[in-house]
Amino acid sequence: MRILGIDPGSTATGFGVVERVEGRVIHVAHGTLRPPRGLCLARRLSFLHASVSEQIRQHGPEVAVVERVFIAANPRSALVLGQARGAILAALAAEGLEVGELAAREVKKAVTGTGAATKAQVQSMVARLLDLDAEPPSDAADALAVAICRAHMGRLAGMDLRGASRRRRRPRSVSSLRGAR
Amino acid sequence: MRILGIDPGSTATGFGVVERVEGRVIHVAHGTLRPPRGLCLARRLSFLHASVSEQIRQHGPEVAVVERVFIAANPRSALVLGQARGAILAALAAEGLEVGELAAREVKKAVTGTGAATKAQVQSMVARLLDLDAEPPSDAADALAVAICRAHMGRLAGMDLRGASRRRRRPRSVSSLRGAR
Repeated sequence: MRILGIDPGSTATGFGVVERVEGRVIHVAHGTLRPPRGLCLARRLSFLHASVSEQIRQHGPEVAVVERVFIAANPRSALVLGQARGAILAALAAEGLEVGELAAREVKKAVTGTGAATKAQVQSMVARLLDLDAEPPSDAADALAVAICRAHMGRLAGMDLRGASRRRRRPRSVSSLRGAR
Repeated sequence: MRILGIDPGSTATGFGVVERVEGRVIHVAHGTLRPPRGLCLARRLSFLHASVSEQIRQHGPEVAVVERVFIAANPRSALVLGQARGAILAALAAEGLEVGELAAREVKKAVTGTGAATKAQVQSMVARLLDLDAEPPSDAADALAVAICRAHMGRLAGMDLRGASRRRRRPRSVSSLRGAR
């Protein structure tokens, strides 16, 4: 099973791909998606959507797991993060992946032993667990940690996006529409 | 100039297309996009993204205007609305449209004469302005009102999504990526 982990953000979105092979979890790829500065909001979101689709086609995961949002005190930052998540989640579903969420705290606890782990602790543990030569950048390390966590769970564990999660179902058409007159 | 107005929402997204012809604004189409119930979050967002793209291909607008967010007191609802906006804005940019935003209050004031207009007042005025046989549903009426408002503005007026708004620029590739080892 090949798993794509994502840590969504409007300026930097981390991703990490791992594969579970006979009980072991192996590193496939990781990176950070950064919409070019100077693009307008809509084009930055379109960049995220297209980049996530590109990574899926390149690495072929069957399952995606996204870091669940810690609800910020500030509605403005919740809106900005929501916009990035929306563009990314739409791409995951359009590519036919099973999509789930895991809380950052649970992931940290599973990977480092404590839900209050620092970014440096996550980077260090991810590098050790995946036998990497160097520590991944922070956003990518968070994404790899989510993917590792999912790899150690059962098929349906941690899958708590609401509603059915059917694979390969393409969206249907518009429900109500009035044509040109 | 053909204009697509959008009133984004996670359960119902209104859209309206109008055309400016020799100083007059003419109705082209309107409707409501409703992700089927029972789909998971990612699939609902993918439905919105695909449905918006479909409307653009069907009606061929060059410009899109999205109702600007009234920031809710509640970060949870800001996140939910942000996710819908993210999926929609990504689709608008991917289709190469010029994308702008207009505040609901300004739109209501321009269309009905008061920024505090009720939904019914907007529906009624939109039907009159576009010479429709029946009042459009509320979300579609809001979307048509945004499009009408944009149609009466100059080429760059109301375009306040931050950064450059270049047409037909496809997103570039990933900025930092580490391949499989």
